[in-house]
Amino acid sequence: MSRITCPILSSKITSAEEAASHIDDGDRVGMSGFTGAGYPKAVPGAVAERAKDSHQRGEEFGVELWTGASTAPELDGVLAEAGALRKRLPFQSDPTLRKSINSGSTEYIDTHLSHSAQQAWFGFYGNLDVAVVEVAAVLPNGLLIPGSSVGNSKTWLDIADKVIIEVNQWHPRAYEGFHDVYYGTRLPPERRPLQLLDPLQRIGDPYLRVDPKKVVAIVETEAPDRNLPFKDADESSKAMADHVVDFLRHEIDQERLPENLLPLQSGVGNVANAVMSNLAHSEFENLTAYTEVIQDGMLDLIDTGKLTAVSATSFSLSAERAADFNENIESYKGRILLRTQEISNHPEAIRRLGLIAINGMVEADIYGNVNSTHVMGSSIINGIGGSGDFARNAYLNFFVSPSVAKEGAISSIVPFASHIDHTEHDTQILVTDQGLADLRGLSPTARARKIIHSCAHPDYRDRLQDYFDRAAAANPNGRHTPHLLREALSWHESFQDNGQM
Amino acid sequence: MSRITCPILSSKITSAEEAASHIDDGDRVGMSGFTGAGYPKAVPGAVAERAKDSHQRGEEFGVELWTGASTAPELDGVLAEAGALRKRLPFQSDPTLRKSINSGSTEYIDTHLSHSAQQAWFGFYGNLDVAVVEVAAVLPNGLLIPGSSVGNSKTWLDIADKVIIEVNQWHPRAYEGFHDVYYGTRLPPERRPLQLLDPLQRIGDPYLRVDPKKVVAIVETEAPDRNLPFKDADESSKAMADHVVDFLRHEIDQERLPENLLPLQSGVGNVANAVMSNLAHSEFENLTAYTEVIQDGMLDLIDTGKLTAVSATSFSLSAERAADFNENIESYKGRILLRTQEISNHPEAIRRLGLIAINGMVEADIYGNVNSTHVMGSSIINGIGGSGDFARNAYLNFFVSPSVAKEGAISSIVPFASHIDHTEHDTQILVTDQGLADLRGLSPTARARKIIHSCAHPDYRDRLQDYFDRAAAANPNGRHTPHLLREALSWHESFQDNGQM
Repeated sequence: MSRITCPILSSKITSAEEAASHIDDGDRVGMSGFTGAGYPKAVPGAVAERAKDSHQRGEEFGVELWTGASTAPELDGVLAEAGALRKRLPFQSDPTLRKSINSGSTEYIDTHLSHSAQQAWFGFYGNLDVAVVEVAAVLPNGLLIPGSSVGNSKTWLDIADKVIIEVNQWHPRAYEGFHDVYYGTRLPPERRPLQLLDPLQRIGDPYLRVDPKKVVAIVETEAPDRNLPFKDADESSKAMADHVVDFLRHEIDQERLPENLLPLQSGVGNVANAVMSNLAHSEFENLTAYTEVIQDGMLDLIDTGKLTAVSATSFSLSAERAADFNENIESYKGRILLRTQEISNHPEAIRRLGLIAINGMVEADIYGNVNSTHVMGSSIINGIGGSGDFARNAYLNFFVSPSVAKEGAISSIVPFASHIDHTEHDTQILVTDQGLADLRGLSPTARARKIIHSCAHPDYRDRLQDYFDRAAAANPNGRHTPHLLREALSWHESFQDNGQM
Repeated sequence: MSRITCPILSSKITSAEEAASHIDDGDRVGMSGFTGAGYPKAVPGAVAERAKDSHQRGEEFGVELWTGASTAPELDGVLAEAGALRKRLPFQSDPTLRKSINSGSTEYIDTHLSHSAQQAWFGFYGNLDVAVVEVAAVLPNGLLIPGSSVGNSKTWLDIADKVIIEVNQWHPRAYEGFHDVYYGTRLPPERRPLQLLDPLQRIGDPYLRVDPKKVVAIVETEAPDRNLPFKDADESSKAMADHVVDFLRHEIDQERLPENLLPLQSGVGNVANAVMSNLAHSEFENLTAYTEVIQDGMLDLIDTGKLTAVSATSFSLSAERAADFNENIESYKGRILLRTQEISNHPEAIRRLGLIAINGMVEADIYGNVNSTHVMGSSIINGIGGSGDFARNAYLNFFVSPSVAKEGAISSIVPFASHIDHTEHDTQILVTDQGLADLRGLSPTARARKIIHSCAHPDYRDRLQDYFDRAAAANPNGRHTPHLLREALSWHESFQDNGQM
């Protein structure tokens, strides 16, 4: 049975190629999609074909692409491969796109995920020409049921001049009721409080709205999300998860956390999954989550009954887990809400709810400044994502990383971070496989002693301590954050020169 | 007539020396005071004397000191001079204290001003032993009328085991009605929305509360606030103010700002005063401010009728302006509210109201990372203050600095910032006397071209461009944020070695 039951909109059903003809060279295009879920599957490929044809004719063809967060090979991948992406925001993780950014071919604007929608509304990025949004179904009255993510779809539908909708039958029709799309945002000075008091509270509508007059094409698809394979946690991830969960127990003992903790947020990745798995086999009960992304580990926690409520903006599941979820979706109803990323990542909500935020990092310096985005200062990996939204406003924040990378050639604790995304003013707790450093209420030098002792790999610990000691000795009037500027980045230089820090 | 009309509390009036005897070695002490306003004038000196006596007897005496923000020689100065400060948070600007921090004698915790109260409540800094809070008067029922600042006084009074009150007759009794002390803060998961919709809206009480049983001493004083002299804006500050105000006009033209702008926030300093003075002589009408500190320039704007409402947490006036304000305080009633710094700097309020935030910086790198706190990476100047609270959550943020310092020996635009307090994800508009760089919606390399062209001093412009060009050439796979790590901090090294960047 067709998922498009609105007569006005069903008259606009067409092919991806025809839909793509509405996207022109130079357009700004806002597409749905967050962490490989809910992105359009067909139109981007057709746009990429248009671009390749144009290039073969010697004509220019490129667009600015705005999304929710990372997408997939069928979106970022094909468009980057076709050389069709001039600008891209706000988060990405596609290898082909990453190459295009690092070669200087695509300009990448790495904004906080909570800032992307409002800055688009503010007009900071220019006018949005076209929105391409994937949904699960179209109701008779034209309302849209989102699928596996909400992301920035609400904003792109609102502000774009033209709209293309993809209706993907792979998403269960039963997604109806899983979403909370907040239509109360305004521009200053008309903004009002978010009346959000707990993770599962509804403050919006279950549907996305679209002005039917703006819809230029509807494309039907049946294609799965990206659904990366789930990897079992390695020893290092398990060790970090143990450090995190032990610390949470310690905080309960100190009466700084309630028995059922506070709402959990965890970034995407194996450590996050390992923490969830650890909690799933723990004494904790009645946990909640207010996060960006629901991974396999969080569904496990729901299945065991330990996690009673999850707010997010997207799924990011393995193929097996996604198939299972789609089959048993009804059993998750009332326990999961997918919100717009303005709300899932909103400083107001995060601070009010008092989150426990767990995010990955690339490296930290000895004073607690954290690099989440760059390799050796120059090359972008993915982007800051929501880590800044969560870390700054959380009740507790953790940054986690293995203590070494590249088989020990790189230390994740360095004298001076080669890029800084989270400053010493924001980072609270650093965790590596070696241990955990609680930096709350400490001066920079006290932090350095803890980080070197608790987080650094033994192969690098003495050298870090030596750097710190010599920096203090060399700066009799600079002992707040002592550095040897000539050596500060030398570990990274050494890696560039010799493949070893 | 006495300002202390509560019989229970007036029985506790005593000398500063007697009051100071309640503060012991090792205590954590929370004192009022924000930007040289509303700090206790007598007890800190008496504590310093206790410390010196103890040290002369060969005994240890030191405390941990928490305040609102910077205080004055009679507080931070005397305690640092006496070697009595083991730890200090969250913002400071006293030269003697700064020396003590940079020599490694005092541990300094440089936290966001909006985080200080809540992190104290969370228990991140340990138990608060004593609060020492200056007020203007004590009512018969024991309620306290604050004076020229609110800062963290509410929190220190709430959480301290013992309380010492200073009642300072220098503050007009007519301060009653100027304050809004919010008693609705809770710990997660009990937090509720701030029902704050405009800068002048009351959400709290005009008074501070204190449990009389905790009060161990009341001291009467009559002594002025620090009241630094007002300096006329120099040419560089005027040029920056012109750039800022011209840009605001441009944003109105582009329909990205309403005619009466949005609530203004400005950091302390000459550029802030120059911007206010510029606005005072402009076409703007019906302006509002939601800021930390009210300086002379903002009172001028009220006097001209251009500024209709100011929310802050403190004054920071010249001696003449303070005397004038104290004399004419009634005429400012209903146009000024002093709030707790949790609320003046609250991310929720800042983002909702959509502020225009203007803050100083020490240096920015070519990609827009900003250093607000350190000289040459190691030595602290003052602290981050509220600049992070405001920049991250504002509608528009400006960071301002002269393009050179030390008669041209230092460029405020550098290849790589020697400390980073505000990251590329947060900074929007950089301003120097040379010009303004609007970085919104730009990739790092596009930002670099703008900053070098618009903000760098001509003496440094070509060298910055040369660094950028060579970094791009050297990083064929790192052209997102190209750096030459070996040279990145060489400008600072050169200044350290030769006194010239």
